[in-house]
This record gives sequence, structure tokens and C-alpha cells, in this order.
Amino acid sequence: MTDLLDRLNTSLTPGEFAALLEGIYEHSPWVTEAAWPARPFATLASLKHALAQVVREAPLEAQLALIRAHPELAGKAMVARKLTAESTHEQGVAGLAHCSEEQFETLQRLNAAYNEKFGFPFILAVRGPRSAGLGRQEIIDTFTRRLHHSAAFERAECLRQIHRIAEIRLNERFGIEPVQGRQAWDCAELLAGHSDVEGVLTVTYLTEAHRACQAQLLRWMQDCGFDDARVDAVGNVVGLYRGSDPQAKRLLTGSHFDTVRNAGRYDGRLGIFVPMIAVRELHRAGRRLPFGIELVAFAEEEGQRYAATFLGSSALTGGFVPAWLDQTDVDGTTMRVAMEAAGLPGTLQAIGAERRDPAAYLGFVEVHIEQGPVLNELDLPLGIVTSINGSRRFLGEVIGTASHAGTTPMDRRHDAALAVAELALAVERAAKREPDRVGTVGIVEVPQGSINVVPGRCRFSLDLRAPHDDARDALTTEVTVELARIAERRGLRYTLHETLRAAAAPSAPDWQARWEAAVSALGLPVHRLPSGAGHDAMKLHEILPQAMLFVRGGHSGISHNPLESVTDDDAQLAVDAFRHLLEQLA
Amino acid sequence: MTDLLDRLNTSLTPGEFAALLEGIYEHSPWVTEAAWPARPFATLASLKHALAQVVREAPLEAQLALIRAHPELAGKAMVARKLTAESTHEQGVAGLAHCSEEQFETLQRLNAAYNEKFGFPFILAVRGPRSAGLGRQEIIDTFTRRLHHSAAFERAECLRQIHRIAEIRLNERFGIEPVQGRQAWDCAELLAGHSDVEGVLTVTYLTEAHRACQAQLLRWMQDCGFDDARVDAVGNVVGLYRGSDPQAKRLLTGSHFDTVRNAGRYDGRLGIFVPMIAVRELHRAGRRLPFGIELVAFAEEEGQRYAATFLGSSALTGGFVPAWLDQTDVDGTTMRVAMEAAGLPGTLQAIGAERRDPAAYLGFVEVHIEQGPVLNELDLPLGIVTSINGSRRFLGEVIGTASHAGTTPMDRRHDAALAVAELALAVERAAKREPDRVGTVGIVEVPQGSINVVPGRCRFSLDLRAPHDDARDALTTEVTVELARIAERRGLRYTLHETLRAAAAPSAPDWQARWEAAVSALGLPVHRLPSGAGHDAMKLHEILPQAMLFVRGGHSGISHNPLESVTDDDAQLAVDAFRHLLEQLA
Repeated sequence: MTDLLDRLNTSLTPGEFAALLEGIYEHSPWVTEAAWPARPFATLASLKHALAQVVREAPLEAQLALIRAHPELAGKAMVARKLTAESTHEQGVAGLAHCSEEQFETLQRLNAAYNEKFGFPFILAVRGPRSAGLGRQEIIDTFTRRLHHSAAFERAECLRQIHRIAEIRLNERFGIEPVQGRQAWDCAELLAGHSDVEGVLTVTYLTEAHRACQAQLLRWMQDCGFDDARVDAVGNVVGLYRGSDPQAKRLLTGSHFDTVRNAGRYDGRLGIFVPMIAVRELHRAGRRLPFGIELVAFAEEEGQRYAATFLGSSALTGGFVPAWLDQTDVDGTTMRVAMEAAGLPGTLQAIGAERRDPAAYLGFVEVHIEQGPVLNELDLPLGIVTSINGSRRFLGEVIGTASHAGTTPMDRRHDAALAVAELALAVERAAKREPDRVGTVGIVEVPQGSINVVPGRCRFSLDLRAPHDDARDALTTEVTVELARIAERRGLRYTLHETLRAAAAPSAPDWQARWEAAVSALGLPVHRLPSGAGHDAMKLHEILPQAMLFVRGGHSGISHNPLESVTDDDAQLAVDAFRHLLEQLA
Repeated sequence: MTDLLDRLNTSLTPGEFAALLEGIYEHSPWVTEAAWPARPFATLASLKHALAQVVREAPLEAQLALIRAHPELAGKAMVARKLTAESTHEQGVAGLAHCSEEQFETLQRLNAAYNEKFGFPFILAVRGPRSAGLGRQEIIDTFTRRLHHSAAFERAECLRQIHRIAEIRLNERFGIEPVQGRQAWDCAELLAGHSDVEGVLTVTYLTEAHRACQAQLLRWMQDCGFDDARVDAVGNVVGLYRGSDPQAKRLLTGSHFDTVRNAGRYDGRLGIFVPMIAVRELHRAGRRLPFGIELVAFAEEEGQRYAATFLGSSALTGGFVPAWLDQTDVDGTTMRVAMEAAGLPGTLQAIGAERRDPAAYLGFVEVHIEQGPVLNELDLPLGIVTSINGSRRFLGEVIGTASHAGTTPMDRRHDAALAVAELALAVERAAKREPDRVGTVGIVEVPQGSINVVPGRCRFSLDLRAPHDDARDALTTEVTVELARIAERRGLRYTLHETLRAAAAPSAPDWQARWEAAVSALGLPVHRLPSGAGHDAMKLHEILPQAMLFVRGGHSGISHNPLESVTDDDAQLAVDAFRHLLEQLA
């Protein structure tokens, strides 16, 4: 790799540079040529980033030309038109040369519909996130799904797929394999084999599948060389890799392995595998760092089986709520009984003993998929979290007067739904007023609404988040004042009940700086963003300095969904960044 | 009556005038004094109207003073403060002097809460719509309900109640009893004794209760002197009062006696009783008009048991849809079987024979409650319908991208509910742009909406109406163009399916003029308004000139609800107007 990178960095002309990268961007040497001024490239990752930037900054027509330079999937072009050797190879890996007649016809139909709708061919990196080739059905499903997108979105998605195609081609050209990234990816794939429900991924607290996950994680930690690995009193799987001085402080890290219903494979879990594989590398090299590494695979974060969100990390902070033990699941099983059935002590004493002494730890770091669209859209594999947003949630109802849709003149209505409509748009405006604030009206319902009745009631929810508690509260005030104004103006009343208030957890500056240094060292730009979602780090924030690293998710960062996706290359960069952070502490 | 009216009309000073009306407006002779310039009054109705106008046009402070001049209900004031003889009498009629201790305490609590919220006492015409006195529980229920209103609404409602109190006092002062109005009211009360469901009023097509109503209507028509009364092939009850020339053309009139579920007592039915009682008066006087009167109590208008709205009137226009016979109700009973069980032939031949020959009729008139707030708010007992609005209805869904409410920045969302929010407000704006147009988004729902998920889908409905088809279509175009714009701007797609398109039925000018003349003759202002709801007249419009008269409904004209209300005085005016219309044709 260093050899080719050296030649690129010392190339004397754009043409010479482009020649070295011929075929990376399909029939489009202008992309590589335009990256020439960005030399020297510290890493392959920075070259990839520079190429993506060239395309981002190119005029729309050039972007479209790049897309159109690509062949159709399994298209007649495969026969009639000269494909690059790369395209032929890739479509072959995906098995597209061996389509059934029906699949072939489906693909032709999809090709035609897609071209008709968007005016450019459908582009998909058929080698997929693991570079191993997507299945034919998966390709057809993706195609079908993407046909529903808007033109602007698909144009951007095709370019992202083109970058992924280029990434895989560059890896091969450079003889690079994201080995640890693939290990993380494969762990996620294997762990997803355990589920409460056949056919989809659902792992809730202390079910059979959950305990199978525990056992698997325990085994992996042992295999990776952790000195100690155990299931703790609440079911967390805790691995310890001792430092050169066994009494030295420890770095605490980890994330959760429970899932929502019909989940993706990376939410939480990637933040277990990345440190696990980093420790494996230390162990393989026979290295001890001057500090210990304690990895916790948290048993419960999602609050699915019991309303006890962040149960796993709460045990470490001393925040386990005693009343949780008496909560029942849908089958009436109390948490205490579930714990005992899982071989846990199920006593507050044992749980209390899991509380960590902050003095024994350096801090807490967590790697997590972004679960949002930002990094995906910006073509950035990694992002540095500035703060876990504070949030407030409300459930409310506007009460007006149900009346006849035909006989009630417009100026004599007290329409509850119109008030919620105004409110939802006011939430959007208020959130947009400052960066990093978000506001959502996720529930909107006119109960028993009828086509010909002016809505007398309208239920709604509010979810308001901001990186600091004062910004969160300011947003809340703006929204609630506006609600009162709307109700007054329209002659309506309303109820509004707060159902959740979570404090923001700003990253500890020195720990955030370590992630930034790690990302920089990989040759990638430092992109800072808040975390809109809650994470275990939010709990650990109560007792330790913390900072998080985000990893780009595919499909616009969709999460809590089987489409959740991370590439082997991005996982590799996460492992590299984690190892760099360890070195900074050494 | 004439005597007192004469004295009022010839009173020389406002003081003299007010003295004659002392006590009509509680401790507030200024109301009557201010009506003095409006003399002469042709009728008691016009005096009542003039008094209401004085209050409408009075400054807010004077209106509040009028309200505050009234005693609390069952208040300590009954003992401690001097009540007018009228108030003492009225509260006595309502049984408020004989409250149980619990009821008395409830009323005190309500009085306190009401005064606290609004700053004026709760006013209710405790003699009620039949002038006979409301029950104590009914008073407490009304009180409890009205506590939820806005201050502006309650101020207006108190003034309306004050006018009703004044109306009843004036009737007694003038020795006037709305005899035919009470007959109509009592018929409604009696007919409401038949219901498909215990405890609420529900009468759907050809049920046992429905057939009991038929039998009752048949008996009443016979008792009122109709020459012929029969149940026709679809279950309509048809009465004929022959003209002096039995071959003469007939006036067709009537309305429906089926109801929605949990209905009010006047919707449709008032339009049967008013002509019935008018005929009774003709019969009592031994009078024959030069034309026949054919009254049809339509068996089906609401489309509740079967999706066959306007079935009753369709039989008269030849619009009965043959496929209706094979429709099934929720129990799987076909309409044909239901007809046979009800003793009807259940054949298309028999139904076809009910088709009317337009040449045999002068036209169709229908009296109906307004089912809207306009007349109630304007203190007008009667209104003249200009057109039955044409309407179009749609069901639609906006499809965006469901995403994490925390992690999806505001500028990267495709929120389906926000598009529907914009649409609903656009519908409101578009409808308001021209008089008499209405637009409603009655169904709004984010399916499986979650507090922390950006809505990926949002279902909605559209109901658009206008007095003419071109205005209705223009409104539709405005709204659908706006929907397309919103979806384009927000990167969303949508579906939109038309579920109903009904043509407008403008009133025949000469028939509308007859109603106007009748209302004028009663000493009332002519107020024209469109009908937002559909009515049997809309069907008859296809074969005959038609025009409708609206009667004010209480409680802001609420309909399809047990609170639906009409006063004996307003029903009397409707009978008077109908009789006047008959005289115009004589």
C-alpha cells in the first residue's frame, strides 16, 4: 500500500495520478484527476475522502454523467456494451451472471422503471457492506425499495454507492483488507443468529436468546485474551484486560447487546466488538498497556421487556431502581423471577455490589453507530460526539368542538387538528432556529376521526432535544408558549403532560479531544455532531468523564430497523481509531 | 297579544315602552328601552329579534352587566338576595327549590368554579326548549359541560340563554303559547322512544324500531287528517292530503326518520312533523287547497345499516340502485331479506313503481334543522337555504421516511405528518378565501406513531364543499395543487383517492323566494345560507324544483348528537312559515 500511495503522492501531473487510479471511478478519470491537488494523502482513507469530495463539489451535470457512466444491473449492456473488468467482476460476485429467468426479467423491469423515473441507471455496490457480494434477492429488494425515493435522494444515494464501489476497488488495488472491520462485522452477523422471534432480530432482557448472546460474548472475550470475563449481577458481560500494573486505573468502555424489536445488527453491539477486537490485537502482540481495559457488554439499554431503560449501565452507576425488580413483563413475570431463572442472584445487595468506584477508572468511551443520516450524507466514516442531547417528551391533547364538516362555517370552527397542525409546524420552525436542536411531533391522531366531522380532539406528542439543558428548556418554552397562543387564538383547550426529562451529557473535553486526534491520525476530517439518541454513555456520564465516537450507518443511517448497515471499511476505521485512543493513553 | 303589541308600538317614550316590558330582561330595563326606536313590531317574533339585536350591539361591558344581573342557579342568592319574581318562578319550575343536599352542593361547587373561570354567573334558561322545565340532573350535566368552554363562547351562550329566558317571559306576558311548535316537539320526543339500542337514539333501516316508527308516523298522518297514508315499497311513509281538485298537482314535502347512531331527535324528523301539523290545521279548519300535499317520511337517508345513503328519496327519483338489494348489513342480512322481513315486496319492479312523475308535482320543499351554528350564533330562528353545497371527498396518505426523532437533523427529514399539517392549514386558508366554502381534514393519523420517531406515513381525509360545482372544483384544485407543492418541497410522495363527488343543488329561485316571503311575513329578517350537509332535497333536485327552510338548533347547532335541540318557539315559527308558503300557493 505504502508503495502505491507514495507513487500517488509524488505523481507529477493529474494525468499520471489518474493513470494510477484508472478504473476506480467507472469511465470517469476526471474524478481522480481532480483529486490530484489534494496530495499528499496520509492514508488510503484520506484518498477515499478526497475522491468523494471531488464528486460532492462537482456540478450536477458532472455527477449525473458519473452515474450514467455505470452499466445497468444485469442489463443487456452486460452483453452489448463494454463493461469495465471491475464491473463485470463485481456483478459476477453478486451472482448477477447467474440470475434465474424470472429474476433477470424483474431486474429488467426495475431498470426500466428506475430509468424512466429518474433518468439515470440504478447504482448499487453489489459487493455490499462486507465486500462479499449481496444476494440476488437482496439486490432486487433494495432496487424495489429505492424506486420509491425522490430523485434528489437517489442521485445522492447513487453517488454514495459509487464511492463504495470505488472503495472496494481501491482496497483491492492497494492490496488492503479491512480484517478487523470484517471480524466486527462477522461478530454482528453471528450474534444476530440469536433472537426471541424467528426471522427477525429481537433480543430482550434475559430471554433465552439474550442468555445465548451472553454466553457467546463471554466466549469471545475469553478467546480474544481478556484476563477475566464474567456475567455480572444484572446480566452484563464484563471483560477485563489487565494493564502492566494490575492496580492501575482502567479505561471503561462498552455498549449494549439487547435490541429493540425487529432490530438492526449494529446498534450497541458494534461498541462491544470494536474494543474486543482492539484487545485481541494487544493480546496477539503480547502487549500490556499501563492501564487496564474493562469492556462491558450491557445487558439492557432499550427498555423493551421491562420499562427499565439503561438498566445495565445503571447497575454500574448505582442507579439501579429497586422497584424495577417488581416490574412485570407482558406475561406477568417479574424482573426478580426473570433474573433468578437466568441464574442471577436477583437481590439488591448483589446488584449494589456492581457499582463502580470512579476513582478506579480513567473514563468511559463508547463507540456506536450514528443512527442518523449525517455522516452518510457527508461521506464521512466517523464522527465525534460533542454531547448526548438532553431531551423532554410530552403527550398532549387539544380539545375543540367536533362539528359537522358541511354545516360549520370556517370562521365558527374550533378544530383541534388544525391547532396540532400549527403546533407541529411551530416545533419544526423553533427547532430549526438553532443548530443541533431537534423537535418532533411523532404521534398525531384525531381519535375516531371521520371524513365529515371537524376534529373535536387531537392527540399529539412532543419530543424536544438539544445539546445542553438550557437550550432544551428554551426550545420547550418556545413550543409551549406557541401552543398556548394557538389554543387561545382558536378558542381551544389542551392538556400537556411531561413523560420524560433527560439531562444532556456533554462530552468531557479531554476525551473528546482524544477521539478527534484518533480520527485525524486516520487522515480523516474531524466532524463533530451531537448525539440525538440516548446511550449508555449518558448514564456513565453521571460518574465518569465520557466521550463517544460515531460510525456512519448506510441507508441514511437508518436504525432500529433490519436495514441498519455498517461497512467492513468503516468498522475497520472504528477499530483503528479505538486503538489510536488506547495508544494516546499509553 | 295584539293589544299589548299595539301599546308597545304606540308607546311615546322609551321609558313607557320599558315599563310595559318590565322584568323581561333581569334587572336590565336598558335592553328594552334601547329597542324602542325599532317600533313598530309586526309580530312578537320581531320584538324578540329586536331585543336580541340590542344586546348583540351593546358594548361588551353592558353585555357582562346583563349577565351579572342574573342570580346564580340555586344560589345562596335565592335566599340572601332579592330575585325577580320571574327568576324565582323559573327556578321553581325546574325543581331547583327541591334539590337534594348533594345536588345543591354540586350546584354550589359548579357555581364557584364557573364564576372563578369566567367572572360571571352561569346562565341557563331552566325552563328549557319545551318551556316545561329541565330536570335537575340535566341542569347539572349542562353546567358541567359548559364549564369546559372558552370564555368568549360562554359569554355568547349566556346571552343566548338570556334571550330564551326573555322569550318565555314574553310568551307569558303576551299570553302566547307555541301550540303547534310544542306538538312538533312532542312528536319528536315520542318518536325517539323507539330505538335499536337501549338508552340512546338509533333507528336504522327496517329494524324493529324503524318499523315501530313507520307505524307511529302512519297513525299520526291518519290522525292529522291525511286522506291517504301508506308505507311504500322501500318503507317510506307517504301521506296525501288531497287538493280541492283531486287531479291537481301536488306539493311534495318531507324529510327522513331514520337516524345516525346515538342521534338527536330532530334531524330529518322535524321536516316530517312541521308539514304534518300544518295539514292538521287545514283539516281542522275543513280547508282544501287548490293543490294536494304529499308528505313523505323517508325511510333511509343516513346510510347506516347499508351503504345506501338517500335510499328513501332515490326510490322517488328512480335512482334506486339495484345492487343495493344484495348489500349485507353487519350481520350478513341482505337488504332484500330485510325488506321481505319487514313485509315489503323487495322487488325492483315494486320499487320502480314508486318513481314520481315530475309533471304531477309543483315542487319539493323540505324543512330541516340547520345542523350548524350559524342561526344560533346570529340569534335567528329561521334561515333560507340558497343551495345544498356540492362536495368532494378524498382519502389520502403522505409517505415520507420514518427516522429517529433524536438523530435526524431537522434539515434531513422527510416528515409525512408535517406535510399533512401544512395541507390542513392550506385547506383552511383556501376555504376561507371565498364565502360559503368549507374544507375539512377530519382524519389525521400517523399509523403506529411513536413519540420518538419522525412520522414516515400520515393518513388524512379531505372534505371540500361549495354552493356550486365550479366553486367546489376550484377549491379542490387549489388544495390538490398545494398538496403536490408541499410534497415536492419536502421530498415526499402521496396517494389521494376520491371517495365521493356530489353535485351542488342550488335552490329553485321561485321556491326560495316563497320561503323568504314566509319568513318576512313572520316579522323576521331573511337570512340566506348554504346547506353544508346533504339532504333528501338534494335527491329530489334531480326531478323537481326544490328549496329548503332551516330551523335554528341549540348548543351551537350540534347535530348527530343527543344534544341536538330545537325550541318550541322555533318549531312554531317553522310551522307558521310552512303554512304561509301553502297560502302563497293557494
